[in-house]
Amino acid sequence: MKTPPRLRKQLDFIVEIDKLKEVDRRTLLMSGKRYENDAEHSWHLALMVILLQEYAAGKRLDTLKVLKMVLIHDLVEIDAGDTYCYDAQGARDKAAREIRAANRLFRLLPPGQGKEFRRLWEEFEKMQTPESRFAAALDRLQPLMHNFKTQGRIWKKHGITKGQVVARNRHIGTGAPVLWQFAESLIREAVRKGYLGK
Amino acid sequence: MKTPPRLRKQLDFIVEIDKLKEVDRRTLLMSGKRYENDAEHSWHLALMVILLQEYAAGKRLDTLKVLKMVLIHDLVEIDAGDTYCYDAQGARDKAAREIRAANRLFRLLPPGQGKEFRRLWEEFEKMQTPESRFAAALDRLQPLMHNFKTQGRIWKKHGITKGQVVARNRHIGTGAPVLWQFAESLIREAVRKGYLGK
Repeated sequence: MKTPPRLRKQLDFIVEIDKLKEVDRRTLLMSGKRYENDAEHSWHLALMVILLQEYAAGKRLDTLKVLKMVLIHDLVEIDAGDTYCYDAQGARDKAAREIRAANRLFRLLPPGQGKEFRRLWEEFEKMQTPESRFAAALDRLQPLMHNFKTQGRIWKKHGITKGQVVARNRHIGTGAPVLWQFAESLIREAVRKGYLGK
Repeated sequence: MKTPPRLRKQLDFIVEIDKLKEVDRRTLLMSGKRYENDAEHSWHLALMVILLQEYAAGKRLDTLKVLKMVLIHDLVEIDAGDTYCYDAQGARDKAAREIRAANRLFRLLPPGQGKEFRRLWEEFEKMQTPESRFAAALDRLQPLMHNFKTQGRIWKKHGITKGQVVARNRHIGTGAPVLWQFAESLIREAVRKGYLGK
């Protein structure tokens, strides 16, 4: 058979996003053996959505929407790359780089699906709905757990302090108050153990 | 705060499953640069669920259930390892190894969630519902696309023939008839291009 044009676009997109597996983050695997990549990170967040949704602020979330959000939230990094969250320099043009990436990537899809992906990505970025706030909370909590498990090796490498980590992660509390309590206890313990500067 | 025991179990499970990122498959990334791992594969399948659900046999799938299934379907390989699908030797005790793994892993969770994960994994394995058949179809189609994109390097390495690939992948047609038509055309082209033995 000749592959229908709509299916062809969808399959080409599936091929294109394979690149996300080669976008490394500034987070180590919990074993400490290598850097984590964006595809692995997105998978891990999806499992966290399934397991931790009972802690979301505002209950009754649309779980399917949160899952879609975390699964696609980093696709723009195929073009824009991963910007380290404590990199003030990189932060300056991050939004512009990511919008260019979204323009290219989501337009590869059939229009309806491209629009849905774009909408989900924008909702995630804006953090103004219960779903996007919960997704963003997990997106902060996950690397925090990785940093703790690897004795703060990456924090130390970049000279990160407790104040920076709290400022960066505080809004976990907006999306999932109980998880922010846990995160705070993790940060305190990290300082006590010398994983993180005071 | 003292972390509540239920949350503690959930967080410990989230730490435990980080290991899936280090379970390599017998599939190369589409760039051919290295082997893919189970976490990346599961993420890719989840995106395929979102993009290709319109091709599922029996329409009106429970998308959330399919997503959960593909996200957790390989967790048992944390203990059981990845068994190459054309490895007759490994296939013999695969089921027993995976059941042992499921017993250990899913019991780490709070009982309700552990049971849900177990049920979803068993449903996926049995392939008797529209959701599990569609999930299984994508689980076959994805590595087929990887093998094609990498000019059949892994097929050649193991001396795999067209007959084996068709036998292994035919049931894509049960879960998603149109995707099996596409898969068949891909297999034919792979033979024509010499990626796959006749």
